[in-house]
Amino acid sequence: MSIRKMSSFSRLIRFIPQAGKRPLIGQPSDPNLDVGLASYESKPIEVNVYSGDSILNAGEPTGEKATVEKLLSPLQAGEVGTIRCIGLNYIKHAKEVNMPIPEVPTVFMKPSTSLGGPWPEETILPKSFLKDNAADYEAELAVVIGKQCKNVSEADALDYLLGFTAANDVSSRIQQFAQSQWSYSKSFDRACPIGPAFVHASQIEDIGKMTIQSSLNGQTVQQSGLDDLIFSVRKIISFLSQGTTLMPGTIILTGTPAGVGWTSEPRRVLKAGDEFRVRVSHGVGTLINKIVEEE
Amino acid sequence: MSIRKMSSFSRLIRFIPQAGKRPLIGQPSDPNLDVGLASYESKPIEVNVYSGDSILNAGEPTGEKATVEKLLSPLQAGEVGTIRCIGLNYIKHAKEVNMPIPEVPTVFMKPSTSLGGPWPEETILPKSFLKDNAADYEAELAVVIGKQCKNVSEADALDYLLGFTAANDVSSRIQQFAQSQWSYSKSFDRACPIGPAFVHASQIEDIGKMTIQSSLNGQTVQQSGLDDLIFSVRKIISFLSQGTTLMPGTIILTGTPAGVGWTSEPRRVLKAGDEFRVRVSHGVGTLINKIVEEE
Repeated sequence: MSIRKMSSFSRLIRFIPQAGKRPLIGQPSDPNLDVGLASYESKPIEVNVYSGDSILNAGEPTGEKATVEKLLSPLQAGEVGTIRCIGLNYIKHAKEVNMPIPEVPTVFMKPSTSLGGPWPEETILPKSFLKDNAADYEAELAVVIGKQCKNVSEADALDYLLGFTAANDVSSRIQQFAQSQWSYSKSFDRACPIGPAFVHASQIEDIGKMTIQSSLNGQTVQQSGLDDLIFSVRKIISFLSQGTTLMPGTIILTGTPAGVGWTSEPRRVLKAGDEFRVRVSHGVGTLINKIVEEE
Repeated sequence: MSIRKMSSFSRLIRFIPQAGKRPLIGQPSDPNLDVGLASYESKPIEVNVYSGDSILNAGEPTGEKATVEKLLSPLQAGEVGTIRCIGLNYIKHAKEVNMPIPEVPTVFMKPSTSLGGPWPEETILPKSFLKDNAADYEAELAVVIGKQCKNVSEADALDYLLGFTAANDVSSRIQQFAQSQWSYSKSFDRACPIGPAFVHASQIEDIGKMTIQSSLNGQTVQQSGLDDLIFSVRKIISFLSQGTTLMPGTIILTGTPAGVGWTSEPRRVLKAGDEFRVRVSHGVGTLINKIVEEE
């Protein structure tokens, strides 16, 4: 994938159009529209269709316009490989969960089967986990690798970054703390919704100026600037690539700010009927999911 | 995938034939041949070729015979998804690393990019990890899911099992203990060699009667029966499938027995030029890898 091809869009969505059933990708006509919120409010989203079939292979504008019938996850499960996640990457969050400030990035993984999408897709809590009454949210900035890389320096790391979206690292706290390793508690189907829009790296001059905010049933519960990351996006990509090939489409969740439900006073847990929102600035928009229980 | 198709082989290998460049799958003509050892000793391996292009889609015998030019990993990276690994699944191993006997399976993950194959493929230690002088081995029985499943009971779990091979969960102990989560230290390219043969589940009446043994430069370092597992294969598959879709091709490493290098007296670490072998009974054979350093 050439650099030229990589920068042929500023932000993209993946969607089912009103006329047709095949998923398309394209750039919303209104550069200021929060597509996640528009989807939630059933407002029309007009899109300039691109020729490619993936944000990893966006192609060029076809000149056609389409209206969104259903917004989809910006990436499909088949193209993301294993999702990398950085734990404890905000100082206040590490403190709220009583963990030491890490000296190296703390890495756990989620399988691609955990990928989910924005509204109207729902976050489904597994019935085997429901007895725990311990489902929690973690709003995160997700970054996506655009070009295969390995042993990348921090200086060069952003050359391999395709862009940004929002994510929720849905977790069962009881399952998490039943063992030393966290992946199991965060790997169920749809435990990793991402979206709504995907913003190209070229659009963000300074990642530190991005902001992330989350709300549970309308109440703001997490709020931070990305300048509060302990390990920067550069550092994380370089660290993860040591001896390790990062394929195009690799999603990296960069960590969650303070305010998770489990350690809040009073404790908050996700329940059926709840609505959780992650809002990321700079055009990413609002990832909204209703919480439902597995049937 | 129908049950009939799934049970159309007893054991398979994937290989490049002497005549041709395209990988084939097939059943070794000699049912008693240790194909890993034969590959190491450059002895001819005659194979009854199958029509499929994957052990997940083996097809039927074509009637053709081929001779192995190069033995390959039984599964390709593109078909395994995220590799699940169970830590601390043998009582003596949990004790040797000073960890409590777990009450639920301890799950970490490796990306499919870490997949490696049997001899003549080498295990490559990342140059960024070499300064640690802390590379270690973990001989494991690997099981592979054959049919998509979710929320499987222990009673039904083996219905979704395609079969068995051997694996080495190559790890950097310094990287592992630099953080609370283990995945990073075990996820570099080729940190998960598997092979040499893949034995169909129908061939194993009692998994507890299988044995695993490993050796470093000819010295036996690990030896156990699979009846020593804390969490059985049934239990592991059921546990991993709770709320979580396991796709065909999912590899599960079932844990390593006592005898890892890091806690041995004197300590053993993998170094360039070392040769590590994992031998699993019942036709799986010997997974042999030479250890080399990343250039």
